[in-house]
Amino acid sequence: MATINENFLKLRAGYLFPEIARRIRSFKDQNPDAKIISLGIGDVTQPLPPAVIKAMKKAVADLASENTFRGYGPEQGYEFLINAIIENDYNQRGVDLDKSEVFVSDGAKCDTGNIQEIFGLDNIVAVTDPVYPVYVDTNVMAGRTGQADKNGQYEKIVYMPCTAENNFIPDLPRTPVSITYLCFPNNPTGAVATKEIISKWVDFACNNKTIILFDAAYEAFVTEPDIPHSIYEIDGAKEAAIEFRSFSKTAGFTGVRCAFAVVPKQLKAYTKDGRAVEVNPLWNRRHVTKFNGASYISQAGAAAIYTPEGKKQVRQIIDIYMSNAALIRESLTKLGYKVYGGVNAPYLWVKTPDSLSSWDFFDRLLQKANVVVTPGVGFGPAGEGYFRISAFATPDSVKEALQHFANSV
Amino acid sequence: MATINENFLKLRAGYLFPEIARRIRSFKDQNPDAKIISLGIGDVTQPLPPAVIKAMKKAVADLASENTFRGYGPEQGYEFLINAIIENDYNQRGVDLDKSEVFVSDGAKCDTGNIQEIFGLDNIVAVTDPVYPVYVDTNVMAGRTGQADKNGQYEKIVYMPCTAENNFIPDLPRTPVSITYLCFPNNPTGAVATKEIISKWVDFACNNKTIILFDAAYEAFVTEPDIPHSIYEIDGAKEAAIEFRSFSKTAGFTGVRCAFAVVPKQLKAYTKDGRAVEVNPLWNRRHVTKFNGASYISQAGAAAIYTPEGKKQVRQIIDIYMSNAALIRESLTKLGYKVYGGVNAPYLWVKTPDSLSSWDFFDRLLQKANVVVTPGVGFGPAGEGYFRISAFATPDSVKEALQHFANSV
Repeated sequence: MATINENFLKLRAGYLFPEIARRIRSFKDQNPDAKIISLGIGDVTQPLPPAVIKAMKKAVADLASENTFRGYGPEQGYEFLINAIIENDYNQRGVDLDKSEVFVSDGAKCDTGNIQEIFGLDNIVAVTDPVYPVYVDTNVMAGRTGQADKNGQYEKIVYMPCTAENNFIPDLPRTPVSITYLCFPNNPTGAVATKEIISKWVDFACNNKTIILFDAAYEAFVTEPDIPHSIYEIDGAKEAAIEFRSFSKTAGFTGVRCAFAVVPKQLKAYTKDGRAVEVNPLWNRRHVTKFNGASYISQAGAAAIYTPEGKKQVRQIIDIYMSNAALIRESLTKLGYKVYGGVNAPYLWVKTPDSLSSWDFFDRLLQKANVVVTPGVGFGPAGEGYFRISAFATPDSVKEALQHFANSV
Repeated sequence: MATINENFLKLRAGYLFPEIARRIRSFKDQNPDAKIISLGIGDVTQPLPPAVIKAMKKAVADLASENTFRGYGPEQGYEFLINAIIENDYNQRGVDLDKSEVFVSDGAKCDTGNIQEIFGLDNIVAVTDPVYPVYVDTNVMAGRTGQADKNGQYEKIVYMPCTAENNFIPDLPRTPVSITYLCFPNNPTGAVATKEIISKWVDFACNNKTIILFDAAYEAFVTEPDIPHSIYEIDGAKEAAIEFRSFSKTAGFTGVRCAFAVVPKQLKAYTKDGRAVEVNPLWNRRHVTKFNGASYISQAGAAAIYTPEGKKQVRQIIDIYMSNAALIRESLTKLGYKVYGGVNAPYLWVKTPDSLSSWDFFDRLLQKANVVVTPGVGFGPAGEGYFRISAFATPDSVKEALQHFANSV
């Protein structure tokens, strides 16, 4: 008798986005002529940079001819991309990396979801509240948690509340934690951590033999000079952290699929009897066994963002989104909202007015302004009373949405 | 203290291909002028069909313009591809499928490696010997096995020998088995199973509530009319099997990355206390949580193989490989070798002469003919005394290799 992995039965239904879709459908049924503007989704809207298009067209052409055809590439990624990543994303920030420390993949969601497979089921995992659900759900599936409570929080997971009181930066855990996910710039709150803050986390990790899983998928949106783009800008972080990066938001690759993880050689985890084991070869083994490399076309496109014209074009696209973010921030602040994020991140985290719950405000905004945002409580109970606005939209639709906001709320 | 998944420490080193590479390097050092021809690797050599190139160029162009840009697609794949798969690969063979039963992915290695995650750790897993190592290694990593023995076979896995005596078709297990991997056309032996044989397996699975994980990545190479392309051509298979397909070998996508799995709604697995659970929603949840869709460009290319010109071009490419296979088969048979496979599969499985071991023959062939093949024992102990030849090569290099064979062995 084939048995199922019963941990899957602990999973709460993917509630947030289906419920948003349901409420939009219901509103549309009653208001068929209403034009709804969505600032709810974290998906890019700008077309790919021309340098990327050019590189991908060439890559497609390469596959059309016997002399330039490429079949299986290295599972860890092509050297042309790994070299560009190391030089531009790391060396230029004073970080040395070996080629064998970079693992190209098809997405940061996949990497942040898969990484837990190389760790023991007895690890105590900490996440922020609010949190990107993939970190939690993949640990539930693997069996590192108990059941969910009425708030959707799972037994054995350590939740670190992020609130206005702590500037949406989690306090160091007071109970033992062996693996912790951190995401800066943060989805959903848009919060960023200074070097000083991250240094405290690195020290904590080194002192407790805790591993930090550092999701830096939004690093390209950092605009202030003192905010680190990589955790490895902090001394000692190679002994403490795995870093995840993505081309999805940086260069519009949500549909193209390319990302990478950095697993430093210095990073160690332990057997139950305390023997230190290098983490890099474990991840390499997982990567080559369960993955067969990102598409050659995607990798060729990703490498193009590191060319001089590619860098300029990527910057222009990010500037569009960050102008949206600045405009949203300014307009909503003028309207009396308390607004967080949006300075070094494409997300803004906004307090609901009149002490409304996240969902009540969602409904009011949909009804009165025909604008869709994401209810903060959907990311965890500490998100109650907040909503997330995404700057991933065209400038025109942002302006229109803000007009609706001003007229009707 | 972060602990590792100690199951990874049970894994034997990936021995086969590194050892082949080591012996080739050593030979080259001693014979710098020798021209080595490889028939050892299962990677395609022909460029992509023009219809695929055209579709991928259009897809790249789509991403260059705001009006046609696509960001995140459905994790399960675009409907344009799923519809083409269902109509061409299934409906035309008399198999009905619902759209929600097809999951597009970035590779059959990934799918056959990931699928075990939705099943309990208490399942008894059966594999053939010889076997594609991914099936085994991913179960080792998950913790379904004990340690490896001196042959590299793991405790708790049920190995089903495939030998000339059983025509390389495994006998039904005599001990309880709850999950079994089957691969037809087979890698590495090139064996295929008739409807009658697969029917027996489906009956076995239904009677024992065993799930068959059916790897049909090489179905496009089936040439004989009575050999099924899909396990669902067999009555009752929807209650018994998950099927894996790939565009890698069919259409040269090893570097492009696109594949799919079929998980029928009727398929059930069980909780420990015997309650039936539908498998399809479990895989859907795994897929949407740990994967973010295959590249839009890859999916657009894959859909093009189902157009009239795409079908014709794919057939031409497969004919090239199958002509290679036929020539290898004929030539080696003439030279006195006992040859299996190569009729409905791009692989030939050949008995070594003079009762040589797989590795001794490998060395002799490398030294005398400068031809590389894959030692059968590398796929499992039942492969000892065999070698695998791949038909994935240019016709010229196949002819040259066969000439070397004839002259020197």
